[in-house]
Amino acid sequence: MKTMNTPNYDGLSAHYLRLHHYAHLGSIASWDRAANMPPRGNEARAAAMTELAALMHRMNTDPSLGERIARAQQESLSDAQRANLREIKRNWEMATALPESLVERRQMASARCEHAWRTQRPANDWSGFVANLQPVVTLAREEAALLAERSGLSKYDALMDRFEPGMTSAQLDRVFGAVRQWLPGLIQRVVERQASQPVVEPVGPFPVAVQESLCRRVVALLGFDFDAGTLSTSTHPFCGGVPEDVRMTTRYREDDFLPALLGTVHETGHGRYEQNRPREWLGQPVSEARSMAIHESQSLTFEMQLGSHPGFAKVISPLLIEAFGHQPAFEPGNLWRLMTRVKRGLIRVDADEVTYPAHIILRYEIERPLVEGEIELADVPALWDRKMSELLGLDTRGNYKDGPMQDVHWPEAMFGYFPCYSLGAMYAAQWGAAMRRAVPDLDARIERGDFAAVFNWLRDNIWSQGSRWTTDELAVRASGEVLNPAHFKTHLEARYL
Amino acid sequence: MKTMNTPNYDGLSAHYLRLHHYAHLGSIASWDRAANMPPRGNEARAAAMTELAALMHRMNTDPSLGERIARAQQESLSDAQRANLREIKRNWEMATALPESLVERRQMASARCEHAWRTQRPANDWSGFVANLQPVVTLAREEAALLAERSGLSKYDALMDRFEPGMTSAQLDRVFGAVRQWLPGLIQRVVERQASQPVVEPVGPFPVAVQESLCRRVVALLGFDFDAGTLSTSTHPFCGGVPEDVRMTTRYREDDFLPALLGTVHETGHGRYEQNRPREWLGQPVSEARSMAIHESQSLTFEMQLGSHPGFAKVISPLLIEAFGHQPAFEPGNLWRLMTRVKRGLIRVDADEVTYPAHIILRYEIERPLVEGEIELADVPALWDRKMSELLGLDTRGNYKDGPMQDVHWPEAMFGYFPCYSLGAMYAAQWGAAMRRAVPDLDARIERGDFAAVFNWLRDNIWSQGSRWTTDELAVRASGEVLNPAHFKTHLEARYL
Repeated sequence: MKTMNTPNYDGLSAHYLRLHHYAHLGSIASWDRAANMPPRGNEARAAAMTELAALMHRMNTDPSLGERIARAQQESLSDAQRANLREIKRNWEMATALPESLVERRQMASARCEHAWRTQRPANDWSGFVANLQPVVTLAREEAALLAERSGLSKYDALMDRFEPGMTSAQLDRVFGAVRQWLPGLIQRVVERQASQPVVEPVGPFPVAVQESLCRRVVALLGFDFDAGTLSTSTHPFCGGVPEDVRMTTRYREDDFLPALLGTVHETGHGRYEQNRPREWLGQPVSEARSMAIHESQSLTFEMQLGSHPGFAKVISPLLIEAFGHQPAFEPGNLWRLMTRVKRGLIRVDADEVTYPAHIILRYEIERPLVEGEIELADVPALWDRKMSELLGLDTRGNYKDGPMQDVHWPEAMFGYFPCYSLGAMYAAQWGAAMRRAVPDLDARIERGDFAAVFNWLRDNIWSQGSRWTTDELAVRASGEVLNPAHFKTHLEARYL
Repeated sequence: MKTMNTPNYDGLSAHYLRLHHYAHLGSIASWDRAANMPPRGNEARAAAMTELAALMHRMNTDPSLGERIARAQQESLSDAQRANLREIKRNWEMATALPESLVERRQMASARCEHAWRTQRPANDWSGFVANLQPVVTLAREEAALLAERSGLSKYDALMDRFEPGMTSAQLDRVFGAVRQWLPGLIQRVVERQASQPVVEPVGPFPVAVQESLCRRVVALLGFDFDAGTLSTSTHPFCGGVPEDVRMTTRYREDDFLPALLGTVHETGHGRYEQNRPREWLGQPVSEARSMAIHESQSLTFEMQLGSHPGFAKVISPLLIEAFGHQPAFEPGNLWRLMTRVKRGLIRVDADEVTYPAHIILRYEIERPLVEGEIELADVPALWDRKMSELLGLDTRGNYKDGPMQDVHWPEAMFGYFPCYSLGAMYAAQWGAAMRRAVPDLDARIERGDFAAVFNWLRDNIWSQGSRWTTDELAVRASGEVLNPAHFKTHLEARYL
């Protein structure tokens, strides 16, 4: 396979493989910090991880890389190697776009803001929060200006490009603008409809150890390879590790089993994507997951398209009875109603599939002008209240802690990240539609507990493709079209009306 | 504190702090591999850890270090800084003593020998084993010759110095030679004495979850800080991690609770040494544990001086009853007899406190001449049989798997390590005698479950000293004399006769 004389490409490939090895150690240390580390280990761990990050930063910004990339572009490469080189170039451009002093100031401002936020949020201390968030915003604007200058994108788009390459606010304005038109009406109709559908509540407690073994059983049903990954417990669920050793976490509460169960199904979508990235390219940038929206499309395919499917409720109903004993709430129809209950609320992470996009649209409509300098932090509470009222009919005046202070994204300067969640839900609906075209009896198969067609489609079309294609190319190859939010609307109407 | 102008020393100190951060990540990855990692993660983990080892090797052998050390020696340093510099110099000399090609060939030979040993041992395949062990021995002799040339030590002593700085075979010959005189007779008398003491066997099964919570309770009694460390399960028990986050492991069998319990007590001795290394020097070589024998003296102080004390049996008897229900075997006197039963056997790791030194003396008397080139592998089985017969009265002819093939140390080229185990037991007895001089009612206190005097003595005299002193200096400061094996004999006679 390696008969070409491509010394520059080969050298770059070796460089990124070395970086990948360091990233492996970083991701295990990071998982361990969340899942195992005792509290007094924190300071030493932070110092060790900072040292590793500095090493990786030096390697990512190695002064020789630019010229080596330029020379590699002249070499005779296969299509896949060329895609890898494209990703290498993108990594290098992102790593070198910002002066180190800016990166450091941003990290310090974020750390300070995030740390204070932990106590300011419960105290509803908006003015204290703004004092720390202002430097974060100022530095994010500075960063956005530098990235925009290099890429030719707008400031906000330049920040979003870090998470979702190729996505623009012009496209988001169209997509979210359309959703904004029909979403409040749809929510209203669904809520009215569900008001007349009785739901039997499950009766706890649900012992953690029993929930845990139930979750492991469902994760195995969903094809996760426990010989190449683990499921453990952490305060905030996530999916980390490396493709050969994926570390999923979840959290349990004794009064309800559904949050842990559906949360685990969600992480399993991320986990299987990671476990099935292209083997022959592992360690190279081209093997990485395509983008955050595509990653989210996998977790949401698992959680929403599959895990909240009425057929899936039928499949897991007997497992619940086996785990917790018989109770009326576990009847498949009732279980499905529990899984798909729609309720307007203030908190994004507690939102259901139907109201969730309202939270995302609101954040996008505030963070975009904030980054562009069109509004200031002082404008946020009034905007937040107006949009919550328009989108969900909720009054948020004076309630900062369940309003603009509820998420860690802004303290952590992750401007441009929120849209990925809803883009992921839209892509998931688009994949669902494509699967049904390819496998017309898909719903009947899911009801029988036969998920192979779902997994095979995802493996062939998404997982195995890594970053071989741009997101638009990936979507067209998988589903015949670029992002088309109509599928999301169709999915919600079919399921909820 | 840092008012002196010591740029070379400060630079070296920063260099070793960086190395320490990388070592932190390596030790967590290593613990994770043993305690969590799913099987299919092994290859990627090995590649990542090899990459880290290569990075650390480059830093340890940085060509500028020699000159920087020489210049730092001219700077105006405090006594502690000078001790740190001495340890830095020692690290650097060890790292640079061997050509990289030799290190690689040794690693490959060991990996091959160890891998084959796993199947050759159960098959009792001595000749197959020798074919792989011969290159390991040849390379160890080559390594020993290079180290000896640099240090002026004999070949075997140069290898032993890696684990036990300052110890020589001349001293070992005296120490082990004396033990050899009285040990077989003592074993005979103890075995005869115990034959007339009836022991009630505990009746299992002992559920793993119950054993685990019992062990955690005992570990907490022994002062281990669970806010700065963990106890988990692995195939081979060990103590790893970093001082701020010590990772102990143990293993459980359902038919007996004593191996896990005493094994955990043993690891807790290592764990508390690590947790209490000098805080103000963490990250610097001078903060490291003094040597392998001193480390083993801590685990054996916990397991033998304290954990196998008749007073300790009284303390844990009610805990056993609480955990497993009442049974005659848990009566304190009987429990103590169970903990201190002496039985001649073929296997070192199963040996009790009294017969253990016989195994170590035998290995020392074989590996020393083997490294020096005085004997060859072909001579080992006959020597092994003769010494097992002299020391323990056992016939090992034809039984290689429970003879010279039983340990992983030789396949892994750890020549010079075995003596540390028995030196550790001797130091532990010496510490025990020193503690009793300082605290005359020590045994009564232990019987009351008051271990504070033991811990305080160890903290002040051993843990907090790190590598500030040579081993001889440490022993004199702690106990008024250098290693004196008479204390070990006194301890055994007092406990077993």
